[in-house]
Amino acid sequence: MKKLDYDQQDLWPFISGSMQSPVALNSQTAKRARYQAPLKFDYGTVAMYVHDTGRGLEVGHRGHAILNNRHFELQQFHIHTPSEHTLDDRTFAAEIHFVNQAADGQLAVVAVFAKLGRTSTVLGRVFSQIGQETLFSCDTSDLMPTNKSYFHYLGSLTTPPLSENVEWYVFQNPIEISTQQLAFLQDLYARNNRDLQPLKGRSLLYYEAD
Amino acid sequence: MKKLDYDQQDLWPFISGSMQSPVALNSQTAKRARYQAPLKFDYGTVAMYVHDTGRGLEVGHRGHAILNNRHFELQQFHIHTPSEHTLDDRTFAAEIHFVNQAADGQLAVVAVFAKLGRTSTVLGRVFSQIGQETLFSCDTSDLMPTNKSYFHYLGSLTTPPLSENVEWYVFQNPIEISTQQLAFLQDLYARNNRDLQPLKGRSLLYYEAD
Repeated sequence: MKKLDYDQQDLWPFISGSMQSPVALNSQTAKRARYQAPLKFDYGTVAMYVHDTGRGLEVGHRGHAILNNRHFELQQFHIHTPSEHTLDDRTFAAEIHFVNQAADGQLAVVAVFAKLGRTSTVLGRVFSQIGQETLFSCDTSDLMPTNKSYFHYLGSLTTPPLSENVEWYVFQNPIEISTQQLAFLQDLYARNNRDLQPLKGRSLLYYEAD
Repeated sequence: MKKLDYDQQDLWPFISGSMQSPVALNSQTAKRARYQAPLKFDYGTVAMYVHDTGRGLEVGHRGHAILNNRHFELQQFHIHTPSEHTLDDRTFAAEIHFVNQAADGQLAVVAVFAKLGRTSTVLGRVFSQIGQETLFSCDTSDLMPTNKSYFHYLGSLTTPPLSENVEWYVFQNPIEISTQQLAFLQDLYARNNRDLQPLKGRSLLYYEAD
């Protein structure tokens, strides 16, 4: 048994980069969670700004969430086209990311797929506010599916610095946006979805809502 | 506004290594937690083995814990001499690490400082079982302080691969071990504590037990 050399700590290997996002979600291999942990949102209905950050449209919006039984504060939400995660090999038209942070710094992103269908009134309002810093009505509950079943795994930010230590909560059910709304997003960004990253042995859990 | 180049994703910077452990705990600057999250342990009283792993003494022990309102399973506990974390610049004689994992893979280490004082009966039993693979009585509650106030931050493993994404829960109050027991540990390892790592803007929280 070789002893770890505590006098040469700068030579110790440091391994990272194996917990990246997005990943391909597979409903067949996802493990059903043994303990329930419903996601609860109190994000309010007022947004503060809409910026094109060079990575996508970002909406300033504050609020509170209980994710996996802990308290988080919403920082902002933003939109990717097409979706970053896939579900059973399906890519969706878009994916909305609600970025939350806990008091200890822990990041948790709640992701919502969007498929083509009816016009999203709230998203339309967001589009009309691009570049504005004025408060506007923005009910985020209209940007989330009614059924709150979700997939959960540990991953990373999907834009630089790609930091790991991010909890992901991806709703199984998509919301709807119109063809015109997708075209509007694609005019801004032909694509702003990161390539799929390998799961590398990480656990993918599935929580079924009541 | 420069747009992020989604056609050259392999050129994106990936930043890591800034959330390492151990760190210097400071009771003056630690932020009092706004939400209570008591730690609850159901680790049982039977251990399975004691190995000298080349990094320290490791005790095989299973059990259940609720940490920050989530379910974790104990994987093992092991001992560092002297302590890895410091508390208000004080280094303790030893530090015991209970390594827990949740269903999503999340690691959480519960750390207990040990100062010189009375003999720890349980630790004595652990010493007598080194190299053994037989079940033995090991009540881990004797290796934890009665008062469960703790410090919490996000860090890393303290031995290679030094992986980040580790939640730390460090009890404020130490347990006691005897001078003879410390000498026994130091005979095995003159030292097996990693150097202090910079906090680099991370939040350090303090939870006061009832």
